[in-house]
Amino acid sequence: MTITPIGLTDSGASTFGQYDPARVVASLRELASRTGGPEGSRRLCWTPDWLEARAFLRESLTTLPVEVDTDEAGNVWVYLRGASTDTIVVGSHLDSVPKGGWLDGALGVMAGVELLRSLAAEGTPPVTVALVDWADEEGARFGRSLFGSAAVVGSLDAVAAAELVDKEGNHLDQVVGEHGVDLTKIDGARTRLRDVKAYLEVHIEQGPVLEARGLGICTVTGTKGIERERVIFRGQAAHSGTMPMEMRRDSFLAASRFALALADIGRRHDGVTTVGHVQCWPGVVTAVPGETRVAMDMRHISHEALAQMFSEMRQAAADAAIAEGCTVDFEHIFRIPPMPFDPRLLAAARTSVREVEGHDVELPSGALHDASEMAREVPTVMIFSSSIAGLSHTKEEDTPDEHLHMAVDAFNRTVRRAIDLVVAGEL
Amino acid sequence: MTITPIGLTDSGASTFGQYDPARVVASLRELASRTGGPEGSRRLCWTPDWLEARAFLRESLTTLPVEVDTDEAGNVWVYLRGASTDTIVVGSHLDSVPKGGWLDGALGVMAGVELLRSLAAEGTPPVTVALVDWADEEGARFGRSLFGSAAVVGSLDAVAAAELVDKEGNHLDQVVGEHGVDLTKIDGARTRLRDVKAYLEVHIEQGPVLEARGLGICTVTGTKGIERERVIFRGQAAHSGTMPMEMRRDSFLAASRFALALADIGRRHDGVTTVGHVQCWPGVVTAVPGETRVAMDMRHISHEALAQMFSEMRQAAADAAIAEGCTVDFEHIFRIPPMPFDPRLLAAARTSVREVEGHDVELPSGALHDASEMAREVPTVMIFSSSIAGLSHTKEEDTPDEHLHMAVDAFNRTVRRAIDLVVAGEL
Repeated sequence: MTITPIGLTDSGASTFGQYDPARVVASLRELASRTGGPEGSRRLCWTPDWLEARAFLRESLTTLPVEVDTDEAGNVWVYLRGASTDTIVVGSHLDSVPKGGWLDGALGVMAGVELLRSLAAEGTPPVTVALVDWADEEGARFGRSLFGSAAVVGSLDAVAAAELVDKEGNHLDQVVGEHGVDLTKIDGARTRLRDVKAYLEVHIEQGPVLEARGLGICTVTGTKGIERERVIFRGQAAHSGTMPMEMRRDSFLAASRFALALADIGRRHDGVTTVGHVQCWPGVVTAVPGETRVAMDMRHISHEALAQMFSEMRQAAADAAIAEGCTVDFEHIFRIPPMPFDPRLLAAARTSVREVEGHDVELPSGALHDASEMAREVPTVMIFSSSIAGLSHTKEEDTPDEHLHMAVDAFNRTVRRAIDLVVAGEL
Repeated sequence: MTITPIGLTDSGASTFGQYDPARVVASLRELASRTGGPEGSRRLCWTPDWLEARAFLRESLTTLPVEVDTDEAGNVWVYLRGASTDTIVVGSHLDSVPKGGWLDGALGVMAGVELLRSLAAEGTPPVTVALVDWADEEGARFGRSLFGSAAVVGSLDAVAAAELVDKEGNHLDQVVGEHGVDLTKIDGARTRLRDVKAYLEVHIEQGPVLEARGLGICTVTGTKGIERERVIFRGQAAHSGTMPMEMRRDSFLAASRFALALADIGRRHDGVTTVGHVQCWPGVVTAVPGETRVAMDMRHISHEALAQMFSEMRQAAADAAIAEGCTVDFEHIFRIPPMPFDPRLLAAARTSVREVEGHDVELPSGALHDASEMAREVPTVMIFSSSIAGLSHTKEEDTPDEHLHMAVDAFNRTVRRAIDLVVAGEL
């Protein structure tokens, strides 16, 4: 069947004079000037600069017919009530890593403000549209990312979260408590999913693929699943000068073999694999390392491929250990399954991307997003803009203005199509 | 020519009732009980426990006709004056690493006490024999090993040493000042080399080779030269999830390739090579390491082989960097040339080892010793005892009593032969 989105002609030409991509970029620059500086963005969650960003969000909404409130997990919700209680949620996060970029998260929130503005200008929408500013997407302070979105879908372990401590020794439960979040009541945020039919998010790629292909935007097919393990090689610490090579059980050589084999596994399966942290013990140049701990991360968009990669990783670790006379143990760090996005919303996004940039390119997201959590419970899709040099989580993070314009344009078009799908009873 | 050492018959049978290896081991156990405990030895240099060990040394000398004094570098010298001012020096160090072993260094000092006792019992020796307890061989507190012996041979950089600081922020110059050592006057210790014709030291192997070969002792051919460098691989930090494998410049993969190639270099040249410390930046599991620093140590008894290994190491680092799209830089940490021991003293040691354990096995020392410094200026030799499991610098450090007995016996015999060589004008 053919769906004609509200405000789109059959040929796909835009009639939304109201949705102004340049206004999104202008508001992002103002946000950056208020909550960032020469060292990058300072919107670390649960800090005054983050509150300042949220104050800026509220100011941006003052002329709009919306209801704003905060849920039990600290997420801010902005409701533009429609003719139906059926709800489409758009959103992202205002919090950043320390010395972060100006676009990561903020793009999706400010694009959402512009969406609400344009919809409100057209009268009461057929369905309710909500913008959410998720709390602590980055997890930069306590190491628990996707805090607010996980709470809403019920995947946050509040007991484990309560025990998290930041570098200064502050406990997560106390810090969030100062922001009105009571971990024992956080499940109350789950009621926000009632009547929600779809979730849409626009975000920067945070990787180099679009730029390398000469593109500005693309449809995102889902977020990759992640397996994260600590791999511990144990051999025998020994004197660097007195232990002959042939008698050594060198745990770092085992770790080196493992790292190279792991990279091969990533390449062979068209996934990504990384050793990002390494620690040798005793860790001095005069000693053969008796123990080496590496932290390993692997990602794939396919369940089956990720499971196969994980199995090969364990075998590669065992082989590396044996080759150097060592043993190996594994400690679980983190796991999230692949989150493929909704086929109906993917079709809507593809059409929109084709209209805006004239191609059908789509990528899985290698980074997690709040969309990864929402996709557990709600039909979800994302749109990416390019990232210059693939950089993110740094003050150098940037995207050409025209790519930002295209991304929010395609996002707006996809939301309109999602509204039509809900109205048509197809979502 | 044939030399018949004093007190040895032509057949080599011992007639030294006076030299009692069991007394050496008994005194080592008493020292351990006074300056060690369940966690190991506590004789960290420039501390009260170290002073206690030195007090024990002085007590051990009270009945002997010796002169005891301390030089400008904090080394304690015990002189048994002979018929000639020509001097043979024996020695080692009472200081230990924190939680160290009971034998490392102390064996050579207490063997020296027993040597002086046995010589004195025989009357005035033909040459002067001096026992030295070197100050701060381990360098465990300030990172400058061989402090006292380097000062005596003039290879200590007093200006650089003055700037060293321990973990608590104490400056080396202040700490040694409290022990009567003035760094600006430390060159005065060099006069101790006057009239010195030979230096001999008995020490535990601190490695597993003798034990693996079923032996208790051996002649030591010299101390291996060392090259120690920091090797810095630089690629591009990137997101573990969003950077495709084929676009990465992963500095840790370069370091892994380097570590494996370095081990091959060590094996190929019959030397030892070690990566003992590794640090990745940013050092989190969510980031491809943009920079990886490794500390590399390589040792060989041959000048030429060590130079070849060093050259191959630099090429291996360059190759590893190129293979992963990285660059590599080198920072010098430490260098000491191989110190082959004196052929005449080696012949004396071989004869003694053959008499005691019936073989001609000899090994280079992979660890540095005060003998490495003395060998720069004076004909030098060492005798090793085995080390159980090759362990040292830990409370588990140990050696079978019979191997300790054989080691000090062979040491005593070698010193007697050295005395004869000096008397004969051959040293």
